[in-house]
Amino acid sequence: MYLFVLLLLVPTTLALWPNPRNVTFGTSSVILSPTFWIHWASTTPAPPDMTAAISRTMAQLYTDNLQRLVVGRANADLQALAYAAELPMLHLEIIGNSEIKSIMAEATCELEYRDESYTLSVPADGTAAMIQANTTLGLFRGLTTFSQLWYSTGGVASTFPYYSFFPGASMIYTIQAPVSVMDTPAYPYRGLLLDTSRNFFPVADIYRTLDAMSDVKINMFHWHITDSQSFPLTVAALPELSQYGAYSAAQTYSLQDVQDIINYAGGRGVDVMMEIDTPGHTASIYESHPEYVACWNFEPWSTYANEPPSGQLRFAVPEVLNFTQQMFASVLSTLPGTLFSTGGDELNINCYVNDTLTQEALSASGQNLSEALSTYVLGTHDTVRASGKTPAVWEEMLLVQNISLGSDTIILVWISSDDALAVADKGYKMVHGPSDYFYLDCGAGEWLGNDTDGNSWCDPFKTWQKAYSFDPLQNLTESQYNLVMGGQQLLWTEQSGSENVDPIVWPRAAASAEVFWTGANGPDGLPRNSSEALARLHDVRYRMVARGINAINLQPEWCALRPGECNLV
Amino acid sequence: MYLFVLLLLVPTTLALWPNPRNVTFGTSSVILSPTFWIHWASTTPAPPDMTAAISRTMAQLYTDNLQRLVVGRANADLQALAYAAELPMLHLEIIGNSEIKSIMAEATCELEYRDESYTLSVPADGTAAMIQANTTLGLFRGLTTFSQLWYSTGGVASTFPYYSFFPGASMIYTIQAPVSVMDTPAYPYRGLLLDTSRNFFPVADIYRTLDAMSDVKINMFHWHITDSQSFPLTVAALPELSQYGAYSAAQTYSLQDVQDIINYAGGRGVDVMMEIDTPGHTASIYESHPEYVACWNFEPWSTYANEPPSGQLRFAVPEVLNFTQQMFASVLSTLPGTLFSTGGDELNINCYVNDTLTQEALSASGQNLSEALSTYVLGTHDTVRASGKTPAVWEEMLLVQNISLGSDTIILVWISSDDALAVADKGYKMVHGPSDYFYLDCGAGEWLGNDTDGNSWCDPFKTWQKAYSFDPLQNLTESQYNLVMGGQQLLWTEQSGSENVDPIVWPRAAASAEVFWTGANGPDGLPRNSSEALARLHDVRYRMVARGINAINLQPEWCALRPGECNLV
Repeated sequence: MYLFVLLLLVPTTLALWPNPRNVTFGTSSVILSPTFWIHWASTTPAPPDMTAAISRTMAQLYTDNLQRLVVGRANADLQALAYAAELPMLHLEIIGNSEIKSIMAEATCELEYRDESYTLSVPADGTAAMIQANTTLGLFRGLTTFSQLWYSTGGVASTFPYYSFFPGASMIYTIQAPVSVMDTPAYPYRGLLLDTSRNFFPVADIYRTLDAMSDVKINMFHWHITDSQSFPLTVAALPELSQYGAYSAAQTYSLQDVQDIINYAGGRGVDVMMEIDTPGHTASIYESHPEYVACWNFEPWSTYANEPPSGQLRFAVPEVLNFTQQMFASVLSTLPGTLFSTGGDELNINCYVNDTLTQEALSASGQNLSEALSTYVLGTHDTVRASGKTPAVWEEMLLVQNISLGSDTIILVWISSDDALAVADKGYKMVHGPSDYFYLDCGAGEWLGNDTDGNSWCDPFKTWQKAYSFDPLQNLTESQYNLVMGGQQLLWTEQSGSENVDPIVWPRAAASAEVFWTGANGPDGLPRNSSEALARLHDVRYRMVARGINAINLQPEWCALRPGECNLV
Repeated sequence: MYLFVLLLLVPTTLALWPNPRNVTFGTSSVILSPTFWIHWASTTPAPPDMTAAISRTMAQLYTDNLQRLVVGRANADLQALAYAAELPMLHLEIIGNSEIKSIMAEATCELEYRDESYTLSVPADGTAAMIQANTTLGLFRGLTTFSQLWYSTGGVASTFPYYSFFPGASMIYTIQAPVSVMDTPAYPYRGLLLDTSRNFFPVADIYRTLDAMSDVKINMFHWHITDSQSFPLTVAALPELSQYGAYSAAQTYSLQDVQDIINYAGGRGVDVMMEIDTPGHTASIYESHPEYVACWNFEPWSTYANEPPSGQLRFAVPEVLNFTQQMFASVLSTLPGTLFSTGGDELNINCYVNDTLTQEALSASGQNLSEALSTYVLGTHDTVRASGKTPAVWEEMLLVQNISLGSDTIILVWISSDDALAVADKGYKMVHGPSDYFYLDCGAGEWLGNDTDGNSWCDPFKTWQKAYSFDPLQNLTESQYNLVMGGQQLLWTEQSGSENVDPIVWPRAAASAEVFWTGANGPDGLPRNSSEALARLHDVRYRMVARGINAINLQPEWCALRPGECNLV
């Protein structure tokens, strides 16, 4: 009871991100024992990706080398550490009797069945810490939370037992033990979209992005891998697509690259939803299959596409559906996840008005363009389902083209946050990615040439505060709440590449990670708000930098060390 | 005559940046001979920084490895190269009889006397190339231009003479020989400001920034080294300033660091104008000298400062002038350049209204606050001049505080481009850095906490196109034109650090580099315009990336290879 009272006197959270659903902290300091280790407590051996995750966590504990973000940094805590108990070990325990699978297997199963829940306790008395979960994925989420508890003394700990033998050694400690966490995400889909077509990203960039995603428990990499500008994806059945459609041979993802990325993601609790956007956004297919692409590079491009170059698949031509199905089937067979996006945004109808092959095909089938589109899209979705997967599409397929999509289809909302209601009213499941909250590329000016004073189409810049203010249930009625699978922030890469992917994404994309993990209220029961979150997000940023992610400063360091002192007044 | 006609048929520029004042190109290809070398043609030995610049240029020729930005990249040029002459060497020649000094000596002399002019010729017939200049600084500018002429075949050149012996070797070539350049900058001051106080930048970041500056012939590093958030500068006479005022011991610039940066800059044709901003923006001095700082960290900060923390020097107190003069003198004695900024922006008068020490000092001196400010500022400027240097101040010292500044004082315009006229009307020399064109930090949202929907104070984002559209002479009368020393883009670092300094600055800051080097008209005699510039700026970006600068993509690579096809229509 005494302890309980104390808990009410201290901040409810230190610097965990996303905030756990339930967490209590104490006021005691605990240091990692020099012999600290992580113990796999089940009799069944740990799957290899779990073992790797344990190793990575152990390394991070000693290499993050993050001093706490307070005035004086580590020096502020040294006195308290003199009385700290030493944490000897962390037990990882699978509870229940289900089969122990790899993190990747758990992370790539159907959304509804993913179990990321875990409990974590770090006692203050020198007894062992414990993470319990039903799945390896849950244990991994717990490990991620555990790794965020610890700070470094930065090599000033040599007056303490043990450490006195290692001059310059850092002590690794937490200041709010005992810690008790019961956690599970509010939404099963928490994503990040990266467009690798407009500009190409080497595999190393994607690995680094996956590392950062995993650090904030984002569990879905929405890989917009192809578009009109380039086709970097190697398709086994149609190698000519990337051979002619990529920017260069060096700017392709080989079959092995894709598997490496999927495995890298899976071991970090991240599923890959690949998107091959059709029938629009396909000008790059012209390079290998000119016969399948209408209005290629027509002028003015603005009549035929939302951005240059124009060019769209002749979806009304039966061979094009066959081709698309062959392409999808070839790719789908290599993907372990259960979601696959067939795209469907920004279809331009002008492209087909004077396209002879399209008009001939329509005459032959007796269909109008809309009916032909429906045949095409549903045909491609059949291919997705034949691979045991669920199709996802951009919102226009439902709201503009009015296609009678299968009820399993997941709708990707992007144009406006206002469109979620229309999707829900039609009874479809959705993922939020509205440009007015979640587009990471907005606000950097016009990338099209010949426009001195131009702004981006989706001005202003979407701050982390704006993303953080998003309400996944806004405008919906309670009976529609279960249609919300989650959401994601998105990076379209007209003005991005290796050089700025980290600073343009991080720590901003952590905002939606918490929105969709923690839900409407923080663990204190109060609505989430960016003032409370800022101090924790600084911690995310500094820890990401320690882990090799070029996440930007949100404020001068002076402010990062003084929560609340740099608020607008 | 035949050649002359050809010159009119090809683009007047390939990808030089900034555009030379006068340049002609031919249509022949020339490749670097495998034995190409750069010959110092004067009998006096080259100064060490010139020798180093020659070595760096030689290295860049072979390591840039940039394929030309056209569809097909290097493959597009292979056929033409079969008929290319080989360039055997490049002569560097100082003309006239003046003493040969180091690049750094030439780059740090008084603005009015800097001679950056050069001529460059690259014949198409296999005879030697030549750069001539009055100074090593001019030769260095010519070398920079020369290095931008060359592209790589990317290892596909093995069917050519010589190269057939080196499978995989790249041929280095240009496609528009003969090249003839006569060049000299339109304005002597072409700068970049970096704020190293709000967040700290390691020396390596500054080196990399200087490399990029030099690549586009920016010749002034305006180093806003201290501010209210931290005092990273080691002052020999007052070591306590950084000891207590820096974020940490690791986040300081030692005396050696400063000299290393000055020398690194000087060898790259860049002068350093250091700024120790007073009497505002000095809260960090409180950490070592609380007695000199009024209203330190008062609440609400917005009453006492433009951003937290508040705190300003008690300029009316005579000891504070002595202290400032001692600080300036100590720093000035280590600086080779001739400009030094004493700051002077955003002085907050409220800070002094209830400040007892200030009011006592005013009573003792019989001065009012404005008179005391004048005494202080002019006193610090005396110290600057006593070191043989010229003071620079932010515009408020002249336009708001109405101080009778010495006629040599350079005014830094920042609040608005409209303020240049008022400065000129008072007859002062000026450097343009208006926030409405040149602030690199605008448009990324509110960094102050507690503001969900906030925009930056200087929205929108200042695109490179906007900066490029700046007219240095706008609103001025012809008799005032000679008051314009040049201008600069500026990075204030509330939301910046190592992680994003490259992508937030480059290639944007190349825009002002060309505005102030090339002047109103390009070498074709037509007004500069961003449509023409875009293709060349892509080249800048790709070459910077090749040289280790994380400059961002301006467009999808598809557009970078197809000038004009991604214009707004």
